[in-house]
Amino acid sequence: MKTGGRRRMGVEERREQLIGVALDLFSRRSPEDVSIDEIAEAAGISRPLVYHYFPGKQNLYEAALRRAADELAERFVEPREGPLGHRLLRVMKRFFDFVDEHGPGFSALMRGGPGIPVGRHGTPTATSRTGDMINGVRQAAYEQILAHLGIASATPRMELVVRSWISLAETTALMWLDGRRIPREELERQLVHDFVALTAVSAANDPETARALARMLRDEPADGPFADLVGRLIALAPGDG
Amino acid sequence: MKTGGRRRMGVEERREQLIGVALDLFSRRSPEDVSIDEIAEAAGISRPLVYHYFPGKQNLYEAALRRAADELAERFVEPREGPLGHRLLRVMKRFFDFVDEHGPGFSALMRGGPGIPVGRHGTPTATSRTGDMINGVRQAAYEQILAHLGIASATPRMELVVRSWISLAETTALMWLDGRRIPREELERQLVHDFVALTAVSAANDPETARALARMLRDEPADGPFADLVGRLIALAPGDG
Repeated sequence: MKTGGRRRMGVEERREQLIGVALDLFSRRSPEDVSIDEIAEAAGISRPLVYHYFPGKQNLYEAALRRAADELAERFVEPREGPLGHRLLRVMKRFFDFVDEHGPGFSALMRGGPGIPVGRHGTPTATSRTGDMINGVRQAAYEQILAHLGIASATPRMELVVRSWISLAETTALMWLDGRRIPREELERQLVHDFVALTAVSAANDPETARALARMLRDEPADGPFADLVGRLIALAPGDG
Repeated sequence: MKTGGRRRMGVEERREQLIGVALDLFSRRSPEDVSIDEIAEAAGISRPLVYHYFPGKQNLYEAALRRAADELAERFVEPREGPLGHRLLRVMKRFFDFVDEHGPGFSALMRGGPGIPVGRHGTPTATSRTGDMINGVRQAAYEQILAHLGIASATPRMELVVRSWISLAETTALMWLDGRRIPREELERQLVHDFVALTAVSAANDPETARALARMLRDEPADGPFADLVGRLIALAPGDG
């Protein structure tokens, strides 16, 4: 059982293969419904050999969720070019691509908890480790959004807008997965609009949020994703009553 | 160990007392940090006697969470009188009262999962039973809102607006609890505005949502919680560019 350079590489390759096989199965059924036997069969190796590379079922599942979480966080990276609405819309498309590709695995990952840090004082159970991964993805999304808005350190109100919108995006994606009754393109656009709308609501109480809103709207072209939203919001105004 | 009428009553009373003691402790520290010994001491009985009434720690915790969940669901009940914005604002005040009173217990309850049904295919673990309670509370909130909007059966888009707003309210409350850096009255009002804003965004794609929006705004007085929101949304409009 020596672990020379070449042998080490083999171990990593095999682990990567098993993670890939697991993620493929998780894209069709919930991780809790996928057995190690199925993963072994799909990988063409024996069950004991799977346990050689991953000491326990939970261990393999966490490695797969970690890979998925890293991949999701990468999709939030967007060049700082062009109007903010278009940038956010492109990120939403990649987010829904991910949700679409991973389906049940995404649901399982996200069911670890709501959109705030969890388990700070808890023991490092499997649930809290999954929670840490989810929070890592949320934090990556949060930091990307602040960076695009040009905010180095957010006020509590701006932080609330961004983090609560991230939770809204999660819920929207999870509800879309449950039956796909609404076209995803519509929801991608809706989430961009939601972000502007939530920012506009909060801007009344916070100058920083108001400035962020102004930056979002400043460079918007007349045919951008914000134009029709603003028009519709104006239409809400009551007559003179 | 006979269980006649009088003896039964005593058991129920003792169970109720222990649940009350537990909820009081959970309002100051997370349930996971509260031991059966502490509950026994606060109730003035021995540890074995606690186990006589609740066969396991998890059993008592679930009974306490159940009581809290029922109490929260009751706070959503609001007479169908007056403008919709005022009704929702009153419910938000009672919701934040609950969050304020239960603090760490509320966080623990809500950390069971995000704002969608969970564990449909899972085994009935403690986590999924907690999830069921949370989903019960969410469902109660959802049905109350639809009833106030006069909607018997929601379209997928209207359902998405209501359920995703409920998840937004949860996240907002959880973030408020973490440091209470924003006055709760501001957040209660903001959540009412958020509901209108999210409905307005979705109304573009769904006639039922557009009708719900019209009903929300129809009876609003000039000094109601929607008036300043609409004014601010109008101010978002770009000049002529």
